[in-house]
Amino acid sequence: MKKLPLCLFSLCALSSLGARTINVADHGIVPGKDVTLQVNQLINAVKDEPDVTLFFPQGTYDFHPENALEIYRAVANHDNSLKRMGFPLYGHKDLTIDGDGSLFMFHGHMVPFTLESVDTVTLKDFTIDWSRSFHDELLVVERDDTDQSFIVEIDPKQDPYTIKGGKLYFERYKIAEDGIGSNMVWDPKTLSPIYDTRSYQMNAGKMKVSHAGKNRVKIEKAVKVAPPVGTTLITYGTQTTNRLAPAMHVTNSKDIVIDGVTVLDGGGMGLIVERTENVTLEGMKVQAKEGYFVSTRADATHFIGCKGTIKLENCEFKHMLDDGINVHGAYVKVEEYLGENQFLCEISHFQQWGLTFAEPGDKVAILSRETILPFHETEVTEFEIINEHRFLMTVANVPANLPKGPLSVENLSWYPDLIMRNNRILQNRARSVLVTTKGKVVIENNYFNSQMHGILIEGDNNKWYESGAVEDVVIRNNTFDNVGYAKTERYPLLASPLFRPEQRFGEGHYHRNVRFTGNTIKTFNGLSVKALSVKGLDITNNTLIFDNKYPEADEGPSIVLEYCDDVLIKGNKAKGFSHDIGISQTDDCTSITAKNNKGL
Amino acid sequence: MKKLPLCLFSLCALSSLGARTINVADHGIVPGKDVTLQVNQLINAVKDEPDVTLFFPQGTYDFHPENALEIYRAVANHDNSLKRMGFPLYGHKDLTIDGDGSLFMFHGHMVPFTLESVDTVTLKDFTIDWSRSFHDELLVVERDDTDQSFIVEIDPKQDPYTIKGGKLYFERYKIAEDGIGSNMVWDPKTLSPIYDTRSYQMNAGKMKVSHAGKNRVKIEKAVKVAPPVGTTLITYGTQTTNRLAPAMHVTNSKDIVIDGVTVLDGGGMGLIVERTENVTLEGMKVQAKEGYFVSTRADATHFIGCKGTIKLENCEFKHMLDDGINVHGAYVKVEEYLGENQFLCEISHFQQWGLTFAEPGDKVAILSRETILPFHETEVTEFEIINEHRFLMTVANVPANLPKGPLSVENLSWYPDLIMRNNRILQNRARSVLVTTKGKVVIENNYFNSQMHGILIEGDNNKWYESGAVEDVVIRNNTFDNVGYAKTERYPLLASPLFRPEQRFGEGHYHRNVRFTGNTIKTFNGLSVKALSVKGLDITNNTLIFDNKYPEADEGPSIVLEYCDDVLIKGNKAKGFSHDIGISQTDDCTSITAKNNKGL
Repeated sequence: MKKLPLCLFSLCALSSLGARTINVADHGIVPGKDVTLQVNQLINAVKDEPDVTLFFPQGTYDFHPENALEIYRAVANHDNSLKRMGFPLYGHKDLTIDGDGSLFMFHGHMVPFTLESVDTVTLKDFTIDWSRSFHDELLVVERDDTDQSFIVEIDPKQDPYTIKGGKLYFERYKIAEDGIGSNMVWDPKTLSPIYDTRSYQMNAGKMKVSHAGKNRVKIEKAVKVAPPVGTTLITYGTQTTNRLAPAMHVTNSKDIVIDGVTVLDGGGMGLIVERTENVTLEGMKVQAKEGYFVSTRADATHFIGCKGTIKLENCEFKHMLDDGINVHGAYVKVEEYLGENQFLCEISHFQQWGLTFAEPGDKVAILSRETILPFHETEVTEFEIINEHRFLMTVANVPANLPKGPLSVENLSWYPDLIMRNNRILQNRARSVLVTTKGKVVIENNYFNSQMHGILIEGDNNKWYESGAVEDVVIRNNTFDNVGYAKTERYPLLASPLFRPEQRFGEGHYHRNVRFTGNTIKTFNGLSVKALSVKGLDITNNTLIFDNKYPEADEGPSIVLEYCDDVLIKGNKAKGFSHDIGISQTDDCTSITAKNNKGL
Repeated sequence: MKKLPLCLFSLCALSSLGARTINVADHGIVPGKDVTLQVNQLINAVKDEPDVTLFFPQGTYDFHPENALEIYRAVANHDNSLKRMGFPLYGHKDLTIDGDGSLFMFHGHMVPFTLESVDTVTLKDFTIDWSRSFHDELLVVERDDTDQSFIVEIDPKQDPYTIKGGKLYFERYKIAEDGIGSNMVWDPKTLSPIYDTRSYQMNAGKMKVSHAGKNRVKIEKAVKVAPPVGTTLITYGTQTTNRLAPAMHVTNSKDIVIDGVTVLDGGGMGLIVERTENVTLEGMKVQAKEGYFVSTRADATHFIGCKGTIKLENCEFKHMLDDGINVHGAYVKVEEYLGENQFLCEISHFQQWGLTFAEPGDKVAILSRETILPFHETEVTEFEIINEHRFLMTVANVPANLPKGPLSVENLSWYPDLIMRNNRILQNRARSVLVTTKGKVVIENNYFNSQMHGILIEGDNNKWYESGAVEDVVIRNNTFDNVGYAKTERYPLLASPLFRPEQRFGEGHYHRNVRFTGNTIKTFNGLSVKALSVKGLDITNNTLIFDNKYPEADEGPSIVLEYCDDVLIKGNKAKGFSHDIGISQTDDCTSITAKNNKGL
């Protein structure tokens, strides 16, 4: 490695020249070597120059962590830690990274793209991958039903491993022994999680492992039912160390475009965005690389506390170990009311620690933690972070008598609109779409084929603490292709807050105005929509078609309503089912109209 | 908890009034409750007001981590992490914290005092303790020599524990299961590590543990020789989590006085100081609290890369699980010479990661990593931190031909003088004093009674990477009371760099000008001084007196010289030994004079 040319450090002087494209090759950044230090420095050098394009001529560029900039970062839904960075964009304005179809190959626990407090940044036309995956793929070659043991074949080049004390460990970049925690069986016929994955769940804590010939390992005492021969057991590390490295992390930013970017792996999500206004994803792909079943260790994309518009068009997300997209806010616990309009608050979920919940000027709602229903809206006047868990928040006013029970707060200023058109989310663990936002939501002309629910409109103040009772959602003309093959009551659409036993409905419904219309549902179980605590729900003109991709199952009525109001079920058709496809509703439902439906 | 009085936030307006004492009780800070948030905020409020004393009326003040300010901190010789802080002093000037004899009681992993970039700060007249110790004390009540198992009694209030999977875990503040790593047996007769501690070393990885009656636990398969009945097994956690919380951490500061401060516990050192000019410790104490054998988990005090004068007077450090004081710099590896006077460097020891090695203007030496001898001195012109491990350093000039072998650098500007007078360091694991600095060192009228060497003048570029070949050291009129009861060749004074097999002497000696004179050595083994690669060594007028505190042992000659030059051994007396107390020297020693010695 040679010292960077001095010209780098004089770029600031050029800032008045207007739009400029920099060919990175002119700065010693060329394929075939570790370019991390040079890229870090070039990015830093153009920090104060607006309207720059960094052009990477097509090729494979390597990024190693040894000389990478490192900053301690809290990353929502990931594990907070010192992060080594490939492209650390801090405060940049009008910057484009143009990959020209290049492959950016990362090594070890690096965060390829960090966008912090940037404005108008475009990432385009490149692929992100890692030299060593964050998960491992073990081919099941023998099984023994009687003692529930099985033998897997492991490619020692792809997934170098050791056995120690009866446990299986994997070697990663500069990590000698990475243990097994989460795991899931993948089906080579569907390129998806196997039907009824839970049956084959492996208890990694109890597993006993031994050598069983060349590249073969016997696994005992770990499963109730051994996975079928020919399937692949995916293992993906233990909690607090298996979500260290998302591919892209965006915070406190504005007007971000991700165009033609492909993510092939990830020690976390493909894209995680926090407190950012306007994000456009055009033709973004998440998919497993050649020879692999699985892509990212977590969601393809995830948005928390954003505003403006989140727009996804022509994207394809597949092979993830978690959801396709999740858009939500956060419920934060009021630890103590200190008087004089000041609250001591605590962030509720450990993977939200470090989140910027609010800033002065934001509108917030105070709500009961029991009913999750807001009772007061006000504005933040002072905001002081104490530590990753807690902050002090002063608001303009509080009710004369605060309720006695436990309270939470949510940030009303930071809920985005969501537009999803012509996307495909498939062959992944968990859901296609999770959305809880008070903004306008339009989900149309998409293809969904996920293992759990198709679209989950949830909101909960007890597990993930994802806020955002919806107010205006349109889901139309989408295809749901055999979603829910996790088995048992997974719906194309589930709209329902998640309650704990000690929580209860309050006065009024949680979600509002959901329209599910014109969708095509290919299904082995006939399920379409379950709704709970929704006021204003249209389920109209949808078509359910029986499909035999998975064994036909009767998992209950196609449409299930609990504590809903103002529901129209009209013009839906179901065909090809040999079991009854019906509608059920609880006694507390009001104004339910069902008419002109065929086959249900 | 109530909101802080508004007066707090108007303190800045008073900054022109000159010296001011604030009674913290006027700000709601009173004994008997968690005062962390209020103390954090009061400290922040006086940040820009010089010459303030925060006066804590005598009492016990509690500090819990829940509402404590948190910042990610690299702490030399500790484990870097997010630190929760009791007294976060950042940029303060002319500030005194006066405890009036108070007890500051901390809970959990907190760093009581953080002094970052402060100038003229005095900490006085208080005691630091934790509600739950960071180590555990297990009384040995039965032993069985044949199978090397033993039974310990554990006070479940003092050391709450559980047994799980045959392993013993301790519960700490909000930590359910803290495992065992390091351990050591303590002798109730001497209140010190037991004689020949290594015999009883426990392999915590192999140990099998089971219940053996009320509050009793049987430990098997862990030792070659079970510790004697009546001794106490001290266990102190596993690496990377057992050095999270030093009592006081000072960095990048100037003119620090610690006066009458007592430290009773510590999840790390009592005091760790980095890159600070002038530190005075007056009457500082480190000692185990009532009912305990052990105080801090690591050194009482430790100074890395400091300058000016470090002065310790009338201090007493005892019961630590590591050294009394250590003063040194750092050898840092040159990873690559990038040309144009720029070096890519890597911090060598994992517990120095994040160290500020240098800043522009500092004088540095470039040296061979094989001989540890410097060959070029120059000045830093640019310094850029890349990550906790690596930095870029540009210097004013380099030799025309850089040697081919591996290189290191050391910072010559940041070596302090050290003055130690009338201190007592005793009843601790490891050494009393480690010192490697190019400054002037005077160690006189102290009492030392440590388990390993009394004073170790080492320097190594292969294990701890502690730099600072000495140039002027006077050690006089001290008492060494049976130091070295770890057994086997522990000396009142060992002056020698630590070499790896692939390292070698270069041309010239490593240490220079060490005077060891007028000291009294009470000893069971007759050892006094070992010196290697020292030029200019006086061993004069010392008195060795046989003492039967431990079994008399012949561990070799009293004075051992290897590759030394210009040595005067004169006027020393030894009495009471039944074995020969002699002098040995290797053939490569030059100019050795020994005369007028009695009994050796």
